[in-house]
Amino acid sequence: MRTDEKQYIFGIRPVMEAIQAGKTIDRLLVSKSLKGDLVTELLAAAREADVPVQRVPVERIDRVTRKNHQGVLATLSAVEYYKLEQLVPTFFENGENPFIVVLDGVTDVRNFGAIARTCECAGVSAIVIPERGSVSVNADAVKTSAGALNYLPVCRESNLVNAVKYLRDSGFLIVGTSDHNARDYTLPSYTGPVAIVMGGEDAGMSPAIVKHCDERVVIPEYGNIKSLNVSVAAGIMIYEVVRQRRNDNQDVI
Amino acid sequence: MRTDEKQYIFGIRPVMEAIQAGKTIDRLLVSKSLKGDLVTELLAAAREADVPVQRVPVERIDRVTRKNHQGVLATLSAVEYYKLEQLVPTFFENGENPFIVVLDGVTDVRNFGAIARTCECAGVSAIVIPERGSVSVNADAVKTSAGALNYLPVCRESNLVNAVKYLRDSGFLIVGTSDHNARDYTLPSYTGPVAIVMGGEDAGMSPAIVKHCDERVVIPEYGNIKSLNVSVAAGIMIYEVVRQRRNDNQDVI
Repeated sequence: MRTDEKQYIFGIRPVMEAIQAGKTIDRLLVSKSLKGDLVTELLAAAREADVPVQRVPVERIDRVTRKNHQGVLATLSAVEYYKLEQLVPTFFENGENPFIVVLDGVTDVRNFGAIARTCECAGVSAIVIPERGSVSVNADAVKTSAGALNYLPVCRESNLVNAVKYLRDSGFLIVGTSDHNARDYTLPSYTGPVAIVMGGEDAGMSPAIVKHCDERVVIPEYGNIKSLNVSVAAGIMIYEVVRQRRNDNQDVI
Repeated sequence: MRTDEKQYIFGIRPVMEAIQAGKTIDRLLVSKSLKGDLVTELLAAAREADVPVQRVPVERIDRVTRKNHQGVLATLSAVEYYKLEQLVPTFFENGENPFIVVLDGVTDVRNFGAIARTCECAGVSAIVIPERGSVSVNADAVKTSAGALNYLPVCRESNLVNAVKYLRDSGFLIVGTSDHNARDYTLPSYTGPVAIVMGGEDAGMSPAIVKHCDERVVIPEYGNIKSLNVSVAAGIMIYEVVRQRRNDNQDVI
């Protein structure tokens, strides 16, 4: 799916057909007041296909389109999502030393696009985002990423804590960026399989994920404002991994 | 000057008074068709005060305001500018190990703001921008910088080549980011006084400045798109300087 194609599908039947056809739907808005067998069927199909559903006041859908939406609006994703459980084994089978970036609540589409761009440039293996509380990977994201999202696999996981646990069990060093009990980000060794977790713009990392980190690191800040932009902080972290791997004489990709 | 104050002054006399009162004017637009003694006087005052003047079709000014502008519109800067020649000696007198970031043609206000934010967080001593072919340091820049521009000195220089020469003569290592004949950005030593020159979004560094660089470095890029965002690239460069200085057991600021 490229950025110039349409981003929305509306109406109960068209959305149902899109789900059944296996289209990647970013999120499905269903009017709160909508009831009946067809809706029940739609919600079941959405659940089956792991499509995040939000029940909303119909006015919210009206703001997107005034066409005959019947209280149902699906946002198509601009990319195909991968599943971590399918991707990770292929990295190891291919003899790669995987490097994954997990975004725990990054909500600004420009930040997301910029991070994806950096990841693609740095040879990151995949980005992981949660199904809820994250950006929509829409046409704007692809554009801000300078096209990186056409190359870089994005995994969307319904439970980010489980995804991080899975990576840890698969032998990844889990590195959280946090300013509590954290050591300088240049101190751990990132030469093996590594997953860097970046927190969101406002709340930072969620405590449930902090618990599963092998390392908590911080980028030192001086001055007065003490708040790096998340896409810049991600760039600094990601290229520290690259620096160490190059020092270790590894092929980065 | 804070972001909530008005950004424009128009009319010959009000602009003249602003210049005489020493207000920092980012740029002065004067209608091409405007002639007469008062205009000559205004242009002389602008020259004297180092205010960049552009002669433009009157329609360009009409697009900003339909008030009685008399063909004269000044954009106030959101910050006070410093002069490198005044600032650099004070760094050395204060026993600092100065670290300067030179932006050679960064034109996107969000990139500029993000770089300023990183600089302030990293304890950079000052940012240098050229008078022409650069962003306006306006309210949007201050906002994107998360307020960093209220703390970080910005030097606006009429001739960036001379500014770089001056830094070199003052003992700074001049480091250009370029992909031609460049070595890995982690290889030079940044532990002494250093000026990092970042090129603009499109054209990169100007050849006249490349000539005056002691080091030309590149951030390695893999993948397909091979183009880091300039604010991310600046973050990576800036924190490599910080990393080396910390390794060298220096107080960064």
